[in-house]
Amino acid sequence: MCSIPSGRVYPLTPMRSTKLGEFDLIELIRRRAGTGLPADWEGIGDDCAVLPWSSGESLLLTTDMLVEGTHFRMDWTTPYQLGVKALAVNLSDVAAMGGRPVASLLAIGLPPGVGHRAERGVGQGGDRGVEMAWAEEFLRGYSSFGVPLIGGDTTASENGITLSITALGIVENTHLKRRSGAQAGDLIGVTGWLGSAAGGLKALQSGIYEADSLLEALHTPRPHLPEGAWLGAQPGVHAMMDVSDGVAGDLRHILKASGVAAQVDLEKLPISSDLQRVALKNGWNATELALTGGEDYVLLFTFDPALKQQIEEQGFTIIGRVVSANADTPGRIDFGGECNGLDFRGYSHF
Amino acid sequence: MCSIPSGRVYPLTPMRSTKLGEFDLIELIRRRAGTGLPADWEGIGDDCAVLPWSSGESLLLTTDMLVEGTHFRMDWTTPYQLGVKALAVNLSDVAAMGGRPVASLLAIGLPPGVGHRAERGVGQGGDRGVEMAWAEEFLRGYSSFGVPLIGGDTTASENGITLSITALGIVENTHLKRRSGAQAGDLIGVTGWLGSAAGGLKALQSGIYEADSLLEALHTPRPHLPEGAWLGAQPGVHAMMDVSDGVAGDLRHILKASGVAAQVDLEKLPISSDLQRVALKNGWNATELALTGGEDYVLLFTFDPALKQQIEEQGFTIIGRVVSANADTPGRIDFGGECNGLDFRGYSHF
Repeated sequence: MCSIPSGRVYPLTPMRSTKLGEFDLIELIRRRAGTGLPADWEGIGDDCAVLPWSSGESLLLTTDMLVEGTHFRMDWTTPYQLGVKALAVNLSDVAAMGGRPVASLLAIGLPPGVGHRAERGVGQGGDRGVEMAWAEEFLRGYSSFGVPLIGGDTTASENGITLSITALGIVENTHLKRRSGAQAGDLIGVTGWLGSAAGGLKALQSGIYEADSLLEALHTPRPHLPEGAWLGAQPGVHAMMDVSDGVAGDLRHILKASGVAAQVDLEKLPISSDLQRVALKNGWNATELALTGGEDYVLLFTFDPALKQQIEEQGFTIIGRVVSANADTPGRIDFGGECNGLDFRGYSHF
Repeated sequence: MCSIPSGRVYPLTPMRSTKLGEFDLIELIRRRAGTGLPADWEGIGDDCAVLPWSSGESLLLTTDMLVEGTHFRMDWTTPYQLGVKALAVNLSDVAAMGGRPVASLLAIGLPPGVGHRAERGVGQGGDRGVEMAWAEEFLRGYSSFGVPLIGGDTTASENGITLSITALGIVENTHLKRRSGAQAGDLIGVTGWLGSAAGGLKALQSGIYEADSLLEALHTPRPHLPEGAWLGAQPGVHAMMDVSDGVAGDLRHILKASGVAAQVDLEKLPISSDLQRVALKNGWNATELALTGGEDYVLLFTFDPALKQQIEEQGFTIIGRVVSANADTPGRIDFGGECNGLDFRGYSHF
């Protein structure tokens, strides 16, 4: 029997014709404003935009926004953790293309007196000005990666903290990995635990504080830069992206971009012992969290089976294989047995 | 007598030692996270970061965030106007370095049902999803400059619309202008009206709708790209930046970066006849709006007096001259007569 309760995992409802989901909005943006690039520039459609840089290298650009209430809560995260996470989620996109980060730009919208809010337990402090200690701690986290900040904007926000970051990376052209390179016959790998961050969020929502590793996965994700650099250097790695919206939905992005389908073995999903333990104790479905939870920030990649031994020696986990798609099923994932008919998708913000 | 009422123009209060103003926050960011750049990269401190690009050219990068309630109100602006302004304020920074824009990245935080809010007059629509017509109009404005979008992020925001944009430009190295190049003896010029956008905002706040040009200046500022390109091509132009926080405060940025001071003739500030008329009728101080109002998005520059005739032929306005600073007064602006003692500063968000 399929271990995934479809009613909870796929709450998608048919969209009204005048409404846009998140992926429709991105597609609309691409159609309306993403044209007119020089022939050797790559725009919307992968983890980073790609521009020619020096001879043999490309410049990578990616942007991500974190909004209070959507991505973080001030009573659940410290300013240090917020600084770490804000940059980490962008660096993860650079890692996913095989690149190394070289700089970032940071735009911050801050309410007056932001540093006082958590301790007061009210919406806004009465004093104008940002608390020095808060800013110092945020920047200590932000600068923990050693990636220099080359530009920024600071602004008042009446409605909560907003962070928007653009990260720059550089990649050797021969190391550049895209979503579109997956080939039938490839194996599918991931570089770390799935579902831990989602488990951490669920723990906070449930008032459970017994699993530090889940909270760490949620609050201070580690961008898989060494893993991305190693995978980038392997010609046998054909496609790569980072897992931000749940591996099921993100794998579909690779499959659709590559015109292929996949078989995934749910038993192989790497789920940490902490998540297994907490899930078992609280009646959560760990497989569901691993497939669709989001915010894992590990790397998802497909590779030539000849590379299997090296991949396993790196400690990466093989979760399935790429198969040919019939004309009507690019992007389809076969989860085996009873789960086959399910339409796994990533988290949509709208 | 000084025509500027100091009590209203300079509401600055002494800062407590643990509080940061906006400019202090930027300085803190620069100190904590702005180090470690390659020797030929320029980071925080000017309108754009500057990176080496192809031979003889540099890449410009700038980021600006627009927050609902701080920078715009949904009942005062159309989505088309918002799309125009969001990119325009970033392109203005590219113009200020003498560059041409080549691409942008856009991160958007959107509440559910954003397109319905204005017409309903309530905080949020109940339906999930973004209104197609709203997104289309926003993107029509955003793409009106013909600058391709190469990356983006879309996210839910419970608290209002947030737009964060990173613009990329390219400039010939010989055309690159910085804030730090002003020299004693230079004249000071601006490329367009001052105070019009601030007048438009004041009109909206006062319920006055008799001056279309002021509302246009506020809602659909035109980045002065041709002006910036022309000024960039003149070796006699020594320093340049865009006027976003009021010309008085922005001129101080140039003066401090260059270690000089200035004399400004208040009579010479270019104030449109619409602003003069509306100000006279409503008892506003047009000079105050021109000096400190903000959001002008014209270019402010200093230049060798030998260039005076060509500058005037371009239709630009000369508002003063750069003078040597004593050791203790870099950044000081002499406004003449009774206004001399005033400490003009730009708008601070905190």
